[in-house]
Amino acid sequence: MSAGERVRAAYARIREVDRPEIWIALRDEDDAILAAEEVDARAAAGETLPLLGLVAAVKDNIDVAGLPTTAGSPAYAYDPEVDAPAVARLREAGAVILGKTNLDQFATGLVGTRSPHGAVRGAWSPDRISGGSSSGSAVATALGIVDIALGTDTAGSGRVPAALNGIVGVKPTIGLVPTTGVVPACRTIDCVTVFARDLRAARTAAEIMSGPDGVDPLARADAPAPALDARPRVAVPTAEHLGGLAPGWAEAFRGVVASLAANGVEIVEVDIAPLLEAATLLYGGAFVAERTAAVGDFIETHADLIGTDIDPTVAKIVLGGREARASDYFRDRENLERLGLEGLRRLDGTVALLTPTTTWHPTLDDVAADPIGANSRMGKYTNFANLLDRSALAVPAGVVDGKPFGVMLTGAPFADRTLAQLAERITAPAIEILVVGAHLRGQPLNHQLVAAGGTFARAVHTASDYRLYALDTVPPKPGLARVVEGGAAIAGEVWLLPAAGFGTFVASLPQPMGVGSTRLDDGTSVTGFLCERVALEGATDITAFGGWRGYLQGLT
Amino acid sequence: MSAGERVRAAYARIREVDRPEIWIALRDEDDAILAAEEVDARAAAGETLPLLGLVAAVKDNIDVAGLPTTAGSPAYAYDPEVDAPAVARLREAGAVILGKTNLDQFATGLVGTRSPHGAVRGAWSPDRISGGSSSGSAVATALGIVDIALGTDTAGSGRVPAALNGIVGVKPTIGLVPTTGVVPACRTIDCVTVFARDLRAARTAAEIMSGPDGVDPLARADAPAPALDARPRVAVPTAEHLGGLAPGWAEAFRGVVASLAANGVEIVEVDIAPLLEAATLLYGGAFVAERTAAVGDFIETHADLIGTDIDPTVAKIVLGGREARASDYFRDRENLERLGLEGLRRLDGTVALLTPTTTWHPTLDDVAADPIGANSRMGKYTNFANLLDRSALAVPAGVVDGKPFGVMLTGAPFADRTLAQLAERITAPAIEILVVGAHLRGQPLNHQLVAAGGTFARAVHTASDYRLYALDTVPPKPGLARVVEGGAAIAGEVWLLPAAGFGTFVASLPQPMGVGSTRLDDGTSVTGFLCERVALEGATDITAFGGWRGYLQGLT
Repeated sequence: MSAGERVRAAYARIREVDRPEIWIALRDEDDAILAAEEVDARAAAGETLPLLGLVAAVKDNIDVAGLPTTAGSPAYAYDPEVDAPAVARLREAGAVILGKTNLDQFATGLVGTRSPHGAVRGAWSPDRISGGSSSGSAVATALGIVDIALGTDTAGSGRVPAALNGIVGVKPTIGLVPTTGVVPACRTIDCVTVFARDLRAARTAAEIMSGPDGVDPLARADAPAPALDARPRVAVPTAEHLGGLAPGWAEAFRGVVASLAANGVEIVEVDIAPLLEAATLLYGGAFVAERTAAVGDFIETHADLIGTDIDPTVAKIVLGGREARASDYFRDRENLERLGLEGLRRLDGTVALLTPTTTWHPTLDDVAADPIGANSRMGKYTNFANLLDRSALAVPAGVVDGKPFGVMLTGAPFADRTLAQLAERITAPAIEILVVGAHLRGQPLNHQLVAAGGTFARAVHTASDYRLYALDTVPPKPGLARVVEGGAAIAGEVWLLPAAGFGTFVASLPQPMGVGSTRLDDGTSVTGFLCERVALEGATDITAFGGWRGYLQGLT
Repeated sequence: MSAGERVRAAYARIREVDRPEIWIALRDEDDAILAAEEVDARAAAGETLPLLGLVAAVKDNIDVAGLPTTAGSPAYAYDPEVDAPAVARLREAGAVILGKTNLDQFATGLVGTRSPHGAVRGAWSPDRISGGSSSGSAVATALGIVDIALGTDTAGSGRVPAALNGIVGVKPTIGLVPTTGVVPACRTIDCVTVFARDLRAARTAAEIMSGPDGVDPLARADAPAPALDARPRVAVPTAEHLGGLAPGWAEAFRGVVASLAANGVEIVEVDIAPLLEAATLLYGGAFVAERTAAVGDFIETHADLIGTDIDPTVAKIVLGGREARASDYFRDRENLERLGLEGLRRLDGTVALLTPTTTWHPTLDDVAADPIGANSRMGKYTNFANLLDRSALAVPAGVVDGKPFGVMLTGAPFADRTLAQLAERITAPAIEILVVGAHLRGQPLNHQLVAAGGTFARAVHTASDYRLYALDTVPPKPGLARVVEGGAAIAGEVWLLPAAGFGTFVASLPQPMGVGSTRLDDGTSVTGFLCERVALEGATDITAFGGWRGYLQGLT
């Protein structure tokens, strides 16, 4: 499909979903098609465009040349002359921007309701919130209008809406994507983020946007990501810090944990109390004064617009930072650093902390009834990440009660790629493999399964139409072969391999071994070892021993 | 000399110099000797002690178990139960602590006069200030009482007193030495520093004190230092930013620059206006509120002691930070970051910025007349370093009008070792070497001199008692040999080699070449090439050509 066709389809989808609240400024369709055709022409001319024809939306606190930047307040609007570097890099790579999306005003909120343009309703259930502050971007992605959408994240704005709308939210390490041309929320901890339905698309966009631009003083060059062990250790909160979740979410989270554990991941329970306490400082301490520094003067000089153009809850929060003293900030910062030191020490030896992304999914009415309280519950697991310079990634992890449930990986700065590799173990299920010979527990090649992240699942027998042969290999191995008659049930073991480990394992198999579908005696099928015919010719039939272990015992 | 003897000598020196204002708490001599004898016993038992028997002093804002920590205010005193990690690591390495030294109270000042224990007078001229805030430590080092002394540095307190007392001041990258057990001045930018008369002793102590302690949240592991090129590029301020220096200091600075330029260093003039503007934020912005956060409550609750136990100028500065808002801090921080980005960009491609360490050396009366103004002039070149996360090193650079003049190298974080290597080119003069053959300009081995950081100085002739021989070497070289009669003046070139480069160059000379003193026709002597006798036997005498170039021309 050409970029032009993709853009036409996107506008058709916009009309179809009828969610006008997603957009603060939508480009004229003809303009967007023209831009797409330019991209198609560049591709035709031989340019390599890693995001060729991807349709994109941009949160309206990030500059896109040709569209006003409003940060959700019409009175604040300005007309940027150039794209933010993040946007320019997307366009350079072949993406086509459709428009600017609605947000919690000044990126202050996790709900998606704090906007004079109206609340953005959840993609899956319009009575629920979308989450925010990157609300329009998340819903445009979840409803399939765009392939990728930019958000920003200070307290969780690039992750919470991902969870509530069943998509991926990549929150890179602070500084990897320059924040030049982004309306600051808390400038020193703001991040540009990416939503996508597909993890790889989101990661590709994030990498394309990364790199110092010479203007953002906080921009940082990327650094090598820690390697992901075959059996990585992942921290999860102890039960006491998984309380208060929406109905069914604790069970869903335990399911993700169990599936990761079965997928070659070692799970470690950690008391994350210091991190949760650090999280409360984001709004409970003097840090909120950074929002005041950013837009406090604007709100004070436009106080007459509070309730119309300026959201009253946002105004209350931003102006609430006026009275904090600089000396309070320094005390809070020391407190934060000491909580961070202790909290992060507890994660030593783990590659990431796995948590639910947020704690509940309120209705629009829930938030209207308690705008600040409802919001603050949502940042429990997200608020500390930027304060403590963490990379993070929110991924969908199933459906509870007809609505999406999401989990989040939070890691060290510059661990972004590692988190993505780990997330693939959540999104790609483990693969079962049947072994009947040298890979059985205690046998000489069992270590290969362990090295690939495998875990023993269960002892099984094949269906009764197999025969087993001792092959002439080093080390000795059996070959399993299906027969039309005269077969028997052969003893074996089912192992669980992570998808990545499975690929590596199979790719490294020497002749005459291969894999294919094998039937078990319970009627199910799993992937098992095949053997080339040539190796079976002249091999000793050892079916009568019932399995490889029986044969080996018979030899001694 | 044993540690015990060194300590005895130190106490004798304390009595001899009669500068009681250096010390806030001096250990009983017998106690110190006992500690020294323990060190001697450890050494005798085979322990490796890199600081064996070094006599040390500690600024009285750093905890030493057994002595009170006062930060210069008796009312603030507390009795630490354990050494600060910096101190513990020194003792572990074999140093013996004599006592706690006077300071500008709460490390707030660059003058050394803001103390209820009295002003610390300059080591070289008692009518002048010592500089501060690490005043007692600097003077104890300069007067030869101790080998090393710990200071701290926020605005320049570990560098300015080094300059004014003619010693070395090492200010490591923030976080390398944990600040656990140090009374905070501005906690996030405080550094523990080392004074010594000798650069290597100071660096050794700094390295021994380095490494995270698990308690200081700002502690950082060391990182690889940038390599020092054979011909490093060093930035110096343009003339406009070298105005207002004490009489003779601009000339002295130009002398250091010229000597470095002659010593294999490429000098680049840089307009450092953004860095100097950043420097003014340390006291001119909300950053001073970090001092308020540290000791503001103490001063407020002890306001009745201002003028006696609490220094009035210090109280004024610390309490001056009470009114700054957190939002002011965030604006100042953004301003700082943008100034830093621009200022540091101008230093791109240089390994360090070379400046005078401070701007003048006031008398005690000068400071009494204008306590804040006199002080603030002194931090012009030092104030920005910690705000912008720089490593820095102050070294003596001569004597002007009978008093020490010092210069400072300021570099990237973790460039500490590189700065020390560069400083050796200031403290160790370049060495002249006479070349007469394959190392002449345009000859095949000339590149060796260039690679060693060498620069051509002048064309010369030897005295008239030498003969030149063509040796049988590859590439062809001459041998110069002094004779009793029948000699001639031989043409050659004098090159200047940095001390480090000279050593490497000489160590790599192949047989039959060596170096030794050679007389020139102007009656002076320089180091020149010698030739083993064995190589001269049977060699062709080419003296008549007047030199190697003449001989080569005669061959064609």
